[in-house]
Parts: sequence; C-alpha cells; structure tokens
Amino acid sequence: MSPGTVVTVLELVGLSVFAASGALMAISKEFDVVGIVVLALLTALGGGVLRDVIIGATPPAAFSDVTYLLVPLSAAAVCFFAHPLAERLRFTMLVFDAAGLGLFAVTGTLKALGAGLGSVQAVLLGVTTAVGGGALRDIFARETPAVVQVHTDLYAIPAATGAVLVAAAHPTPLPLPVVAVTAAVLVFAFRLAAMTRHWKAPQAWHRKA
Amino acid sequence: MSPGTVVTVLELVGLSVFAASGALMAISKEFDVVGIVVLALLTALGGGVLRDVIIGATPPAAFSDVTYLLVPLSAAAVCFFAHPLAERLRFTMLVFDAAGLGLFAVTGTLKALGAGLGSVQAVLLGVTTAVGGGALRDIFARETPAVVQVHTDLYAIPAATGAVLVAAAHPTPLPLPVVAVTAAVLVFAFRLAAMTRHWKAPQAWHRKA
Amino acid sequence: MSPGTVVTVLELVGLSVFAASGALMAISKEFDVVGIVVLALLTALGGGVLRDVIIGATPPAAFSDVTYLLVPLSAAAVCFFAHPLAERLRFTMLVFDAAGLGLFAVTGTLKALGAGLGSVQAVLLGVTTAVGGGALRDIFARETPAVVQVHTDLYAIPAATGAVLVAAAHPTPLPLPVVAVTAAVLVFAFRLAAMTRHWKAPQAWHRKA
Repeated sequence: MSPGTVVTVLELVGLSVFAASGALMAISKEFDVVGIVVLALLTALGGGVLRDVIIGATPPAAFSDVTYLLVPLSAAAVCFFAHPLAERLRFTMLVFDAAGLGLFAVTGTLKALGAGLGSVQAVLLGVTTAVGGGALRDIFARETPAVVQVHTDLYAIPAATGAVLVAAAHPTPLPLPVVAVTAAVLVFAFRLAAMTRHWKAPQAWHRKA
Repeated sequence: MSPGTVVTVLELVGLSVFAASGALMAISKEFDVVGIVVLALLTALGGGVLRDVIIGATPPAAFSDVTYLLVPLSAAAVCFFAHPLAERLRFTMLVFDAAGLGLFAVTGTLKALGAGLGSVQAVLLGVTTAVGGGALRDIFARETPAVVQVHTDLYAIPAATGAVLVAAAHPTPLPLPVVAVTAAVLVFAFRLAAMTRHWKAPQAWHRKA
Repeated sequence: MSPGTVVTVLELVGLSVFAASGALMAISKEFDVVGIVVLALLTALGGGVLRDVIIGATPPAAFSDVTYLLVPLSAAAVCFFAHPLAERLRFTMLVFDAAGLGLFAVTGTLKALGAGLGSVQAVLLGVTTAVGGGALRDIFARETPAVVQVHTDLYAIPAATGAVLVAAAHPTPLPLPVVAVTAAVLVFAFRLAAMTRHWKAPQAWHRKA
C-alpha cells in the first residue's frame, strides 16, 4: 500500500470507530434508529465539518466524497445489530479511537495550515477536528462533554500535543510525512498511556478533584 | 396562483408553524420574551441555515430575504399573546408541521443537488433542513431531541423517504415539479399516518422499547 | 490613543471578560483545564464566529489575528490560578461585561451591514455577536442559557436596542463613529441600569413570572 492509501485506510478506521461510539451512546440512551444514525454521523464527521466550515472549505470534505458518509453509516448499521459484541470490544475500540484521535489531530492541523491559518489557530482546529465530533455527540445526547470532565483520562491533551508538534515543525525543513507520522504515533501512544495509567487533566489551582 | 407562488406560500406557512412550535416550547419552559424569539427563529430557520452553511451558500437564504425573518417573528408574536389558543390547536398545528416537513425535505434536497452535491449527501441535507431546526430547538431548551426518541411518532423517516425519492428521480428525465410535489405529498401523508397510527422507529436489535 | 486603538483595546477587554465568564463557569462545574480553555474560547469567540460563518466571512476574524485567541487564553490562565479573586470581582466583571456587550452588539451589526445584509438581519447578527458566545457556553455546560431565563436581568434587549440604533442610523447621513459610540454607550448604560434595578424581560402574556 502507498503511504496515501495507508492514511486513507486509517482515516476510515477512525471514522468507523468514532461512528460506533456515537451509535453505542444512542443505543445506551435508548434512542431509536434515527438517533443511532444521527449520533454516528455527528461523532464521526462533526469535528471535520466544524473545521471546514470555519476555514471556509465548503462543502466540507465529509460531503464531497460519499465514502465519508457510507463508512459511518455502515458502522451504525453494524452497531444496530451487533451492539452487545461492540460493548464487549470496548477496550479494542478505545485503541482504534486513539489511532483516530492521532490521525485527525494531525490531518486537521495540516488542513488548517494549508488553508493559510497561523500556528495557534491550526492547533485549535486540529484539536477541534479530533475531539469536536465527540463533544457534539455528548451535547446532543444531553451528557456533559466527556472531554472536559475531570474523571476522563487525558484525551484532548494528547491531541493538542500532536497538533503543536505538527504546527511547530511546519515552517522547518523537516520532511512533512515524517513529522505527520511521528506526531500521530505520539498522540496514539500518549492517549494509550493515559488510558492505561488513568492520567487526568488538572482542575483549577487549589481545587481538589 | 403560479406554482412558484404556491411553493412560497407553503414555505411561509411551514416557517410559521415551525416558529410557533419553538415559541410554544419557550413558553412551556417559562422562558422570557427573548427566549420565545430565539426558539422561534432557531426552529424555523436553523435547519436551512445549517444546510446553507454546509454547502457554502452564504449568507443563508434565511438572511437574504427579510420575509424569512419577519414571518417567524410574527408567529412568535402571535404565540406570545395567543398561546392558549395555539395549545388548543395543537393537532391542527401538527398537520401544518407535516406539510412543512414535506416541503423542507424536498426543497432542502433540491438545493443540495443544485449545489452539485451527490445523492446521499443531498438526502442527508434535505433531512437536516426539515428536522434540524427542531433538534436545535430541543438542544437549546435542554430537551432530548424529540426526533431521536423512541416514543415520538415517525418524523425524520418520512422526511428521509421524500428526500430519497427526489434524489433518486433527479438524474432521470422525470419532470422535476411533478417529482417534487409527489415527494412532498408523500412525506405529508406518511407523517400524518404515522401521527394518527402512532408508528415508531425501531430501537437497536434485541432491545425492547 | 486613536479612536481605532480605543475600539481595539475595548474589544480585547470585552473578550477577556467574556473568556473569564466561561472559565469561571467551567471551574464552578468542576471541569478540568481542557474545559476551562474550551469554555473561555467558546464564550469569547463563539458569537463572532457564528456571525462570520453566517455572512460567509471565513476564516472568521477570531482566526485571522492570533491576538483574538491569545487574549482569551490568557484570561483563562489567570482564572485557572486566580479564580477566587475573580469570583470576588464578580460585580466589576459584570461592568466590563456590559461594556463588551455594547461593543460587540455595535461592531457585529456594523460588520453585517458592511457585508450587505439588510437592517433586520444585521440587528439579529449584532445581537448574536453579543450574546451568542454566552449561549454556547451555557449549552456546553448543560445550563439553560441565561439569556432566555426570566430571572436574568435584561441582557439581550439592551444589545438589541443598540443594534437597532446602529441599523436605523446606517442609511442616514449621521457620522458613523458618533452613532457607533452613542449606541455602545447606550447599551452599556441600559445593561448597568437593568443589573442594578433588576429589570426583567416579560414572559408570555397572562403567564405570571
């Protein structure tokens, strides 16, 4: 497989896992099939759509290639029937989710830099790409977004670390593919470590958890 | 009346009814007059604005012709004073709402196809146009969106049926006005049948309602 | 200082105070540092980003000059450490917030008029600029948006008054800087009066508060 194909495959795996996390939340909330589809699409595509609408790249990537809709819809269909299996595979799914997190943080940052945005803005949009869909999923399902809760293992911070690395390396002569892969792997490893060791983000100074 | 005028009149009726459903929810939540106006506008215009922002047709239709703002604002004003009457007319309003659902599903799908989007994407945006405003209303008012709840009579699925019909007929030589009217009437009839017979969308496989 | 510098300084003060109100809500909700940053940025920048995405001015102003990100981030950092002090300065902050409200209502309306939108639309977007970020903050934090609650002192209505003044004066030969300053000061004074005298917006007719 060419490097481009590898990225595409990983992206579709990431979208599937994000979609499954939306579908499974809809199922746990006893939403109907419409809710399962809505939350699957919102979780998988919401972050990237927010990024593209903000940088003015409309219609967003998620609407230009039908694969980006069919893959999350397929994941929703699988969850509709096989949700008990998906629940049992929760840890496996979290591993794939960590891969998606790394990939979307990196590709989101690169897309924002490519649209001419500054480094800080690109980091913000890279993190939005990676964690925005999950936040929209939680808001739609009337949950406090997991990404801001103190009992959630680090999630946005690994994504931000990768985005900062990409934005910092962008003006240098370092080869972009190497930087991108390194940053994505770093996010993946950082998130896995945070999950297994239950690292948490701090709350405000002097406020106990 | 010319066919174009008929569509415009139906569209304004649909906007009024959507706006009224937002205003009445604000009143039932004991929001103040600001909340009544906000929820009326969000319900009436939210779906179309989401669609137009996604396809890049900015400013959205709702902001290009002031009628699209004045009609929902008038509906909000009527509800402000006459909400007990509006509550008694709930069934009548649901009938008009079903007409709006059909119309917005069809016009939303056509607008997305006209912007060059693919069929699947156009169906998704047609349904978003029809049900997006109501979902934003519910999120703003801290309700679980009615459109995904298992005890709600079918709502998004009739809209999706009409959108699929329009998108499927679009590449054929069938005359567009006939297709559009047929699809809108079908959505209307399907939604009315679902309301009177209390058809529900299924939940995930093996999960009882 | 030139008039342009005065506006810029006031804008940055407004952004800081809006950001602090987001950060303090995150702290009171026991969100982690990610939540503090997210709510600070959403509150400070959300209204302007909504306006710019709707009028098609992408990337939004908040993403074109890094100062618009660094100032709210700094305010979030100050709150992270000094939140007990910020809580004690609540009234002072509300005064600055009222200044931000006036300024953003006026600049938001002017920007929408400058993009060629009609008066009613520009008023709506001016108010959205001023109160949209706070509404997004509340939705993200699972609060009923304060702006629609009957026990909140008038907030959107002072903003709307200033926006209407600007939109009404825009086609006249009145000098724009005078109009803008008058409108912003009017919003500020109206909001301060509403705060100190606890003026409330009415609920629907015949419904007691």
